[in-house]
Amino acid sequence: MVCIGVVDTTFARVDMAKHAIQELKRLVPALKIKRYTVPGIKDIAVAAKKLLDEGCDAIITLGWVGPTQTDKFSYLAYSIAIQQLQITYGKHIIDVTVHEDEAQGEKLKEVAINRAREHARNLALLITKGPNALTPLAGTGQRQGWPDVGPL
Amino acid sequence: MVCIGVVDTTFARVDMAKHAIQELKRLVPALKIKRYTVPGIKDIAVAAKKLLDEGCDAIITLGWVGPTQTDKFSYLAYSIAIQQLQITYGKHIIDVTVHEDEAQGEKLKEVAINRAREHARNLALLITKGPNALTPLAGTGQRQGWPDVGPL
Amino acid sequence: MVCIGVVDTTFARVDMAKHAIQELKRLVPALKIKRYTVPGIKDIAVAAKKLLDEGCDAIITLGWVGPTQTDKFSYLAYSIAIQQLQITYGKHIIDVTVHEDEAQGEKLKEVAINRAREHARNLALLITKGPNALTPLAGTGQRQGWPDVGPL
Amino acid sequence: MVCIGVVDTTFARVDMAKHAIQELKRLVPALKIKRYTVPGIKDIAVAAKKLLDEGCDAIITLGWVGPTQTDKFSYLAYSIAIQQLQITYGKHIIDVTVHEDEAQGEKLKEVAINRAREHARNLALLITKGPNALTPLAGTGQRQGWPDVGPL
Amino acid sequence: MVCIGVVDTTFARVDMAKHAIQELKRLVPALKIKRYTVPGIKDIAVAAKKLLDEGCDAIITLGWVGPTQTDKFSYLAYSIAIQQLQITYGKHIIDVTVHEDEAQGEKLKEVAINRAREHARNLALLITKGPNALTPLAGTGQRQGWPDVGPL
Repeated sequence: MVCIGVVDTTFARVDMAKHAIQELKRLVPALKIKRYTVPGIKDIAVAAKKLLDEGCDAIITLGWVGPTQTDKFSYLAYSIAIQQLQITYGKHIIDVTVHEDEAQGEKLKEVAINRAREHARNLALLITKGPNALTPLAGTGQRQGWPDVGPL
Repeated sequence: MVCIGVVDTTFARVDMAKHAIQELKRLVPALKIKRYTVPGIKDIAVAAKKLLDEGCDAIITLGWVGPTQTDKFSYLAYSIAIQQLQITYGKHIIDVTVHEDEAQGEKLKEVAINRAREHARNLALLITKGPNALTPLAGTGQRQGWPDVGPL
Repeated sequence: MVCIGVVDTTFARVDMAKHAIQELKRLVPALKIKRYTVPGIKDIAVAAKKLLDEGCDAIITLGWVGPTQTDKFSYLAYSIAIQQLQITYGKHIIDVTVHEDEAQGEKLKEVAINRAREHARNLALLITKGPNALTPLAGTGQRQGWPDVGPL
Repeated sequence: MVCIGVVDTTFARVDMAKHAIQELKRLVPALKIKRYTVPGIKDIAVAAKKLLDEGCDAIITLGWVGPTQTDKFSYLAYSIAIQQLQITYGKHIIDVTVHEDEAQGEKLKEVAINRAREHARNLALLITKGPNALTPLAGTGQRQGWPDVGPL
Repeated sequence: MVCIGVVDTTFARVDMAKHAIQELKRLVPALKIKRYTVPGIKDIAVAAKKLLDEGCDAIITLGWVGPTQTDKFSYLAYSIAIQQLQITYGKHIIDVTVHEDEAQGEKLKEVAINRAREHARNLALLITKGPNALTPLAGTGQRQGWPDVGPL
């Protein structure tokens, strides 16, 4: 049975984990979900690490980043940790991050939900079908949350 | 007995540790506090590491960051180290950082005290109730120090 | 037999891997290619790590970076991870990254294809001829994707 | 006998190590100083590491940073390394860095000397009296090199 | 016999390694040079690591950085890796980096050559005479490539 860890925050303004979990359950048979909710993005990496130590095969993280320079620096420190975890464990951590300067209000909510769902699909494909599952889409300008832009 | 390490600085302009400790003592029964005071944020990570090595179950750090680009870079180096420590030890380090460009004077003091107290509550919940303690608040736009912004 | 891992993304707008693989096959006799396609640059490092663990002798990565400050920070986190992997494994990971603010439309596509092909040649030389293969070109202002600028 | 490593640079425009050493000798009985002079901040971390490997109990580093964006990025890489060293060894590395955009001429010299002396005092207290030596000053707005700003 | 690794790039517009090697040979008796040429700065760290694994006592790297924000971020990732290598191996890696926004044309070439030679001298001193070889110059405002600025 595949175990996927889901880490989300109370800082986020949309319950993205709910949507990611729905999508994962629809796509991955015999799935075990472990959810861990933390205050903000600076607390996500350690939660992901704990879920990997408990045997999860992959993680999806649902972060939310404010609009200031300080927020961006926190995002950077967070991102470096998520990279470090992935190359330590050799497991995918699909990072769904929404930035408050991407859009406003309802539009931002829509971006968040779509991004969570689309990345859940990416993760389901990688986990169930392996390294070449996404190869047919290589170089095709896929976007998550916003419309795909297509190949040049 | 739960041990929580508290690391704070002489650089800060508010004794945030006092407030964090009060709140932790109120919420966590049979609590042991170990406090370590250092000059500034660049000295926090090693103090946190020492407290983890002494057996603390989690850490709360109380940092203060000046307004310049250099200060932000120091914050970034600090944040990367705190991330690294968390994913090495698998323990939460709740980072309460106040940035001098957030507000001025009395308002900044209020932000600092509230943030310390609110994050102490977050930590108490995570330590005593585990990964799903905060899940009812997932995606609800919680803020620490400033008013919550709510879900979209 | 030499094994080269090729990691690319669905975010990219050009199928750079196709061109890199063509060039590698032309230049490296008895070559085994392992390709791994991921959503975006934040997923590349773990794929590269897995291919190295499966025995690849070197990796070529084909990334694509959007134009915003957030995209640049993601690029930075990605780059730090690729550096970390290289110095952990002692294997070359030739990083072909295209930035959307480099050019537009057909020109950007041309840059991407040329960069992928030229770096594939660099990698083929390093893998088959070793540390001094590129020494005749040292300090000569080679560029990949754009015209060489020559020595001063 | 306590051993403190002192790492300084030829890039700096003030012999800060001299002042730090004077202050340390005044405050720490039975002190052994090991000094290591390197070209610039990018060479400090490895010197500190060598002194720690030789048995030093703590390090004070005396860096100097130019005013450009590139200089700031070098400062950031340096700071990340100093953090990494501290959390690897569990030893304090008190970082005295002077930035050329802080002040000019005689004023900058005064900042440099005062910062070196004040941080030497911080280090002496931490080394000889431990984690609570600075607690009476927690949250009191101490500054090194510039006047203290006091609590809010 | 001392072994010094020299890592340079085809991206650079000046053959700095030639000058560094001349200077090292002049200053270090019984010297073994191992040279490794790579495409650009993002490939330097792994080459340096390989030379250290082959037994080199120290490394001099000769990098060249373009003028854009992206180039600076690549420089930062590179610098972090060079720091990491140094503190892992406990060996000096003297980093000679030229930035294209420092000067133009002939002047930039002169900066590059002088910087390579002056840092080769720094490395020769550190390797042959140890931690206090540069102490007489501590705090004297030495610059490499540009004129020294002297002490304040």
